Amino acid sequence: MARILITSGPTREYLDPVRYLTNASSGRMGAALAEAALAEGHEVVMVSGPVEVQYPPEVSLQWVLTTDEMLLACEEIFPKCDGLIGVAAPCDYKAEAISPHKIRKTGQPIQLDLVETVDIMAELAKIKGDRWMVGFALETEDTHFRAMTKLQKKNCDFIVLNGPEAMHAHDTSLEVLNHQGEVVLKFTGTKEAAARRILERINQDLLR
Amino acid sequence: MARILITSGPTREYLDPVRYLTNASSGRMGAALAEAALAEGHEVVMVSGPVEVQYPPEVSLQWVLTTDEMLLACEEIFPKCDGLIGVAAPCDYKAEAISPHKIRKTGQPIQLDLVETVDIMAELAKIKGDRWMVGFALETEDTHFRAMTKLQKKNCDFIVLNGPEAMHAHDTSLEVLNHQGEVVLKFTGTKEAAARRILERINQDLLR
Repeated sequence: MARILITSGPTREYLDPVRYLTNASSGRMGAALAEAALAEGHEVVMVSGPVEVQYPPEVSLQWVLTTDEMLLACEEIFPKCDGLIGVAAPCDYKAEAISPHKIRKTGQPIQLDLVETVDIMAELAKIKGDRWMVGFALETEDTHFRAMTKLQKKNCDFIVLNGPEAMHAHDTSLEVLNHQGEVVLKFTGTKEAAARRILERINQDLLR
Repeated sequence: MARILITSGPTREYLDPVRYLTNASSGRMGAALAEAALAEGHEVVMVSGPVEVQYPPEVSLQWVLTTDEMLLACEEIFPKCDGLIGVAAPCDYKAEAISPHKIRKTGQPIQLDLVETVDIMAELAKIKGDRWMVGFALETEDTHFRAMTKLQKKNCDFIVLNGPEAMHAHDTSLEVLNHQGEVVLKFTGTKEAAARRILERINQDLLR
């Protein structure tokens, strides 16, 4: 039995009071992982961006909006957990300055200065200690190479690789790579079944 | 009895296969207006961007993703309708070029060139003929002045003015202005009640 932090959903980075950058992460994989972890007898704490999906009522849930808010919540919660599954898709760019008023249309193009948001997993890796971390990578090219680069940068024990077609879909196709770059799981099917298989691998390889 | 086109929800403008610009429009006001119109015996055709809200099963519904797609659908449907309620919040900026691959993080800021999307209501005004149009304006400053500017630009019969706090909320606070700039309705309450009041005004002033 472990206490597991699961990050889930997208974050939003506002340009002005109305418009924002985001992605189509639905929180469904996060909900499925929470269900699977609860079914294995684990305790689950979730930090989630705005989604419509219903998380299991048994989880302790904290809502956040931006990537910075997600990191702050995780820095508070992670030290009290045994491991982390980072399935959230935090927005990784934000406006350099947020306009306090709705940006007015003038008929002309505008140039928007975007800066990278903080890398939540890389930050949490700094306070990892003897905890385990499972990251997710959504890649559209050089998929294995980029996933392994992320695993190393974020000091993860497993990285789960999937494509953009998994976003906001009921099914998923994924591979789990370990620290040696070995594919320890390859699965296509519902997110619920995929979540159970991932939890099995975590139980077997990461929980001691 | 009229045949009414209702546009609803946000649209999305992708920067790459994953990231997009959007807003928090939930489609709830669109759903409430559809319910209210059906209750008055009207026929309803909806064109909606991606939302989780359930639209009434009695409406004829067409899903779209981008602002261009929303315009195309409306140009097809509007000529066959008696009037239009444009409660959608189409994304009004888009990337000048969509990256075919996920934009790679380099640690450096990026400059994004945004161009305005087409103004759906202004385009539909060109083929309005003897149909009526009700637009929505979400303003954060100089609210009456800007709403009236929009009413004129989009050649609307009514413009419904509200603030960003209405987005993704259950309640709303709104004013309806007519072509003379008179406030013909001022209402605060649930979106369902607001929708019924707006339909009453449409029935009374616009349906002949």
